[in-house]
Amino acid sequence: MRIVLDAMGSDNHPAADVAGAVMAAREWGDEIIIVGQEDVVRRELAGHDTAGLKLEVVHASEVIEMDDKPAQAARAKKDSSMHVGMNLVRDGKADAYVTAGNTGGVLAVATLHTLRRIPGVKRAAVTGIFPLPAGKVVVLDVGANADCKPEYLFQFAVMGTIYARDALGCENPRVALLSNGEEPYKGSLLVKEAYGLLEGSDLNFIGNLEPKEVVVRQADVVVTDGFSGNVFMKTLEATAKMLTVAIRDEIKAGVVTSLGGLLAKPAFARVGKRLDPKEVGGLPLLGVNGVVIKAHGRSDAQAIKNAIRQAREAVRGEIVEAIRQGLAREE
Amino acid sequence: MRIVLDAMGSDNHPAADVAGAVMAAREWGDEIIIVGQEDVVRRELAGHDTAGLKLEVVHASEVIEMDDKPAQAARAKKDSSMHVGMNLVRDGKADAYVTAGNTGGVLAVATLHTLRRIPGVKRAAVTGIFPLPAGKVVVLDVGANADCKPEYLFQFAVMGTIYARDALGCENPRVALLSNGEEPYKGSLLVKEAYGLLEGSDLNFIGNLEPKEVVVRQADVVVTDGFSGNVFMKTLEATAKMLTVAIRDEIKAGVVTSLGGLLAKPAFARVGKRLDPKEVGGLPLLGVNGVVIKAHGRSDAQAIKNAIRQAREAVRGEIVEAIRQGLAREE
Repeated sequence: MRIVLDAMGSDNHPAADVAGAVMAAREWGDEIIIVGQEDVVRRELAGHDTAGLKLEVVHASEVIEMDDKPAQAARAKKDSSMHVGMNLVRDGKADAYVTAGNTGGVLAVATLHTLRRIPGVKRAAVTGIFPLPAGKVVVLDVGANADCKPEYLFQFAVMGTIYARDALGCENPRVALLSNGEEPYKGSLLVKEAYGLLEGSDLNFIGNLEPKEVVVRQADVVVTDGFSGNVFMKTLEATAKMLTVAIRDEIKAGVVTSLGGLLAKPAFARVGKRLDPKEVGGLPLLGVNGVVIKAHGRSDAQAIKNAIRQAREAVRGEIVEAIRQGLAREE
Repeated sequence: MRIVLDAMGSDNHPAADVAGAVMAAREWGDEIIIVGQEDVVRRELAGHDTAGLKLEVVHASEVIEMDDKPAQAARAKKDSSMHVGMNLVRDGKADAYVTAGNTGGVLAVATLHTLRRIPGVKRAAVTGIFPLPAGKVVVLDVGANADCKPEYLFQFAVMGTIYARDALGCENPRVALLSNGEEPYKGSLLVKEAYGLLEGSDLNFIGNLEPKEVVVRQADVVVTDGFSGNVFMKTLEATAKMLTVAIRDEIKAGVVTSLGGLLAKPAFARVGKRLDPKEVGGLPLLGVNGVVIKAHGRSDAQAIKNAIRQAREAVRGEIVEAIRQGLAREE
């Protein structure tokens, strides 16, 4: 397998990105193609022991930065590490692309300038894989399309089902719509219309779910527009962080509770690790003509390695071909 | 002050509701009018020491249940405790109405059958008051209107500002739009259009905020459609609960961590209490012609009492008159 890794993606690039690539190459023996400004990447690589690893460097002169306007940068910076890297996948020279860079940039470069959408796909979706205590839940869209039509949500359900089944090994995934109430008559106009489409499909559609049911994994795949999905994802992350800080502050406020906190520390660490989105890797971009994984901007080397693992799972599951066939069948 | 309390609202009615009314009457000396099936209410009241308290019982033969379809029940059950109670406010016989009943029912009875909207108000909003570590944040709409227009969001901003200022004592409240990115060009079409309206207003509008900024109170008032607001509110509650359970389970899994958990328990309890929505009371229904507070369905007596306190603050702040004037000025 050959996986392209964007050296210029993470907030801490190229250190975290390159270190993650080295870890992945060592662990799985895959070929990792590191794309970025060549001198910068080679200097970073020189600090690692890369003997025997299949690492290649491909030069890209430009970088799409976190504060670039996505559509504009995707149009202007044609030699960015995103363009060069995704074109390697498009041209069959690699199997997957992994980046921790600007989400809007990845989306624009993938759908408009390089890989493009799988024929028949109306919108690509940024897909969240939530490592909840009850297991992984796939939620899409979590950010690509702030405004959606019912038929997009239907396609998200098809793509999410395929991803859960073929990349995550979930049998007959249960699909739900994120809504403001469980009853079929609850929801926005969008949700109500999507409900009708999903009810008549051969997906394993179980109806509407509220967030409290999503977090205990009453469904395996949860479908929503990219605005509400983004609010869901970011509220979950923000609440977890806020609570952690609040508990730490209260524990530190007293001597006895401080001691208690010290003794209970391994338990906190285990919860933190289990719920850490970085442990999953990143957000698959579903609906484009190639495997693309968007890792968190704050990724460290371990998170980059996990995103590469996720890319391997998607390639192994032949996700792109499965989505192509799945959508053709549902039309 | 005279406050109407729905005896038939909470999941545990009438016990929790009546007990909360008695606590409130004792603490503040206000007159509490308890509305519900008279024999049921009087039997419940008989179990309390009510000597010297200003408690009145008003009969209502019907109850809007949690699983009733809101619009239908509001039309059919004209002698419900919601109709009878809100009519007392409409007719000037009481100053505010508090219920822990069916949210859709409260909304339908208030806007369509009894109090109705303040002239000029396009949509009433269910308003969340989040007791975050950094202070209270007002978020609206959190459930009344799944589909919104930009001008509704503008009015929510006006009403939320008035509530934060006059009921919560927040000076010059900062107003933000909930969005999927901070930049002005981020957001759904709805958010982008609302941005334009708010930017040109004399409100203290500070732009778009993501959930992570909302939970650390970078704004005092956060405006959103009722679908996304509901997702925000319920994801926050669900994540807090999920994390609490996960931490408890991990702590109990070992002897040392169990001891640590025992010692740290008071810290957890303080965090839980500080973030408990029941400590705030309930959700003000803003935009209707009277003070209406919707308490949580799972309210206990303390939560009902807190909702009554919140009603008192809204009455003291002359919220309804302030919204009437505020909207007239902004038109």
